[in-house]
Amino acid sequence: MSAVPDCQTLRLETRDGILWITLDRPDSRNAMSLHMVDELRRVLAAVHEDRAIRALVLRGSGGHFCAGGDIKDMAQARAQGTQAYEELNRAFGSLLEEVQHQPQVVIAVLEGAVLGGGFGLACVSDIALAAHDARFGLPETSLGLLPAQIAPFVVRRIGLTQARRLALTAARFDGDEAMRLGLVHFVERDAQGLEERLAEVLAQVLRCAPGANAVTKALLLDEQPLGPLLDQAARWFAEAVTGAEGVEGTLAFVQKREPRWAG
Amino acid sequence: MSAVPDCQTLRLETRDGILWITLDRPDSRNAMSLHMVDELRRVLAAVHEDRAIRALVLRGSGGHFCAGGDIKDMAQARAQGTQAYEELNRAFGSLLEEVQHQPQVVIAVLEGAVLGGGFGLACVSDIALAAHDARFGLPETSLGLLPAQIAPFVVRRIGLTQARRLALTAARFDGDEAMRLGLVHFVERDAQGLEERLAEVLAQVLRCAPGANAVTKALLLDEQPLGPLLDQAARWFAEAVTGAEGVEGTLAFVQKREPRWAG
Amino acid sequence: MSAVPDCQTLRLETRDGILWITLDRPDSRNAMSLHMVDELRRVLAAVHEDRAIRALVLRGSGGHFCAGGDIKDMAQARAQGTQAYEELNRAFGSLLEEVQHQPQVVIAVLEGAVLGGGFGLACVSDIALAAHDARFGLPETSLGLLPAQIAPFVVRRIGLTQARRLALTAARFDGDEAMRLGLVHFVERDAQGLEERLAEVLAQVLRCAPGANAVTKALLLDEQPLGPLLDQAARWFAEAVTGAEGVEGTLAFVQKREPRWAG
Repeated sequence: MSAVPDCQTLRLETRDGILWITLDRPDSRNAMSLHMVDELRRVLAAVHEDRAIRALVLRGSGGHFCAGGDIKDMAQARAQGTQAYEELNRAFGSLLEEVQHQPQVVIAVLEGAVLGGGFGLACVSDIALAAHDARFGLPETSLGLLPAQIAPFVVRRIGLTQARRLALTAARFDGDEAMRLGLVHFVERDAQGLEERLAEVLAQVLRCAPGANAVTKALLLDEQPLGPLLDQAARWFAEAVTGAEGVEGTLAFVQKREPRWAG
Repeated sequence: MSAVPDCQTLRLETRDGILWITLDRPDSRNAMSLHMVDELRRVLAAVHEDRAIRALVLRGSGGHFCAGGDIKDMAQARAQGTQAYEELNRAFGSLLEEVQHQPQVVIAVLEGAVLGGGFGLACVSDIALAAHDARFGLPETSLGLLPAQIAPFVVRRIGLTQARRLALTAARFDGDEAMRLGLVHFVERDAQGLEERLAEVLAQVLRCAPGANAVTKALLLDEQPLGPLLDQAARWFAEAVTGAEGVEGTLAFVQKREPRWAG
Repeated sequence: MSAVPDCQTLRLETRDGILWITLDRPDSRNAMSLHMVDELRRVLAAVHEDRAIRALVLRGSGGHFCAGGDIKDMAQARAQGTQAYEELNRAFGSLLEEVQHQPQVVIAVLEGAVLGGGFGLACVSDIALAAHDARFGLPETSLGLLPAQIAPFVVRRIGLTQARRLALTAARFDGDEAMRLGLVHFVERDAQGLEERLAEVLAQVLRCAPGANAVTKALLLDEQPLGPLLDQAARWFAEAVTGAEGVEGTLAFVQKREPRWAG
């Protein structure tokens, strides 16, 4: 299995085909520093081609997911000028693009503050679980700033209609509302409920073939016009069904047994 | 009214301006064989220009809608090589494209298994009614395969956020959940409830002008940029209001009577 | 603050940074005449660059929002020929495009009839509040006509899946259903509930910086591909954070006081 880089802002653990990533700056409610952005991007790149890693679980330490951008980075960029702000901001957008397209299934566990950049990170997960009392919001415009890299992903996550209200009012809301808005897939009453749901979701993911899931995810995110997309999908289908996973999966089905990857 | 082709895998009946199409391979829970795909496509083509047919009702025999692809076709394609898989797969995508753009209102009645290809077919209906205990799911990746032609239509149906969870976990869910996800428009407790809802929906459709509905459907599905789309819509509006339906409809409104097509 | 034009079909009031626009043709349930379309467009243009106006509140007089197009305009267009219909129709679409992109936050208060063109106008608001007994619907196809300029905005508002059922059945529905479909953000039991919710929403909007909100709205509505959009967003972020609002907002945050615009 891939070596993952040593990180200062993240706690990493690989276990049972899962890479557990914990944002670990609890003193700042895991604010998304440029350092953390860089480390996350390096971790994603390190495991990108590793089909033995089936899912990534993203969560925060200290009872919070992520409270947004980091104030110290902002102060430093101010000293360096406008260009530094632009690069700082765009780097976070690149992280969001990379999480969105990561071949593994990305699961976010959302507790406490899920604000600004943390909100954006939640929007690029494949499956999101929220505590009912998590606090979501886009506070940027109330600070005279923009949810610049985040807004496009919010529109893709919950649609324009809900995104415009949230971004233009900076309204805060809880996990139940996040569920109603379609931002998360599950909302749970307490920590135990979250862990049980996470175990259930991971068990489902592990029953799915890793290569097939990676190709399916690419297909879901492909925004080319429908006709060419279906042509390409047919080629990918033919490759999958004649490939090792397709042969094993259909054979296991006929033999009424679990396929190897589900072991 | 159009002649519809003789079919072996479908039961067809034309009555009161409605074409009733029943997938009729109950021994395989109406699995979508290549033969059935071909017959469905020929039926759609035969009635394409027939405005006397106002709606198509798609359902399955034997208590199931459609359990997915057909295993015998798959075995045959295996014998013929990769290219045969690609063509088999793409043909099903063409069917989905044609149902999506069929000028008549397409209504799906979803009971029992609504899996894989059956799920895809549900996603291109204009109005979907589900039994509360119907079973929905995309099992492909758990078999080492891809929901190749289906995934793009699932994204268009329920959005990326819900589609990615369903496709990457192969999760099963029932009609109530299908309603919550926006996959279907109505969920009913039993067979009688389904029939009553279907009658209500058909009565609504029959009050709408057939030509106006066909053009409106084309407009809803048109993905060109907004400005040119609105220009074209204005031309279509002018044609509609000065055409036979527009004249009759506005006259009937003034005369406080039903228009002819609602008779 | 900007002068707004004198209007015959609208009542206008500017107060506390809010422009209150009341559709005021109660005898026809505020039917959207060409005259009203022209006046609305002139009002929007007059305040377009005015950041002292923070929100526009759109509502109707006499207990209705807007019952659709105007019959007298239609009769006049009939006398003038097909081209007149086309222009009449497209002008309404231009109004919808302009409301959609208006830099200020647009809030719609929906009571009574919200039909046809009124439905379209609701679809381009940033925040929509509905009375539970408001009556929504797209009656066009039941009159032999098309929801021509409206349909594309309905798709963008609530998605293709819900839009196709509503447009192809001309079904009527109430405020609770509008909430369930995601057409509106709030539904209230009575007039007092509507006023309280409107006050709450306006208070939230006024805490957000006017320039930041205008740029964020443009960002949310921008449909260019994701990569270039994120590049542009980074430039806009750098401008915002180094601009007057960004400096004031982050300073106020550090000083634990309200920023000037929230006063």
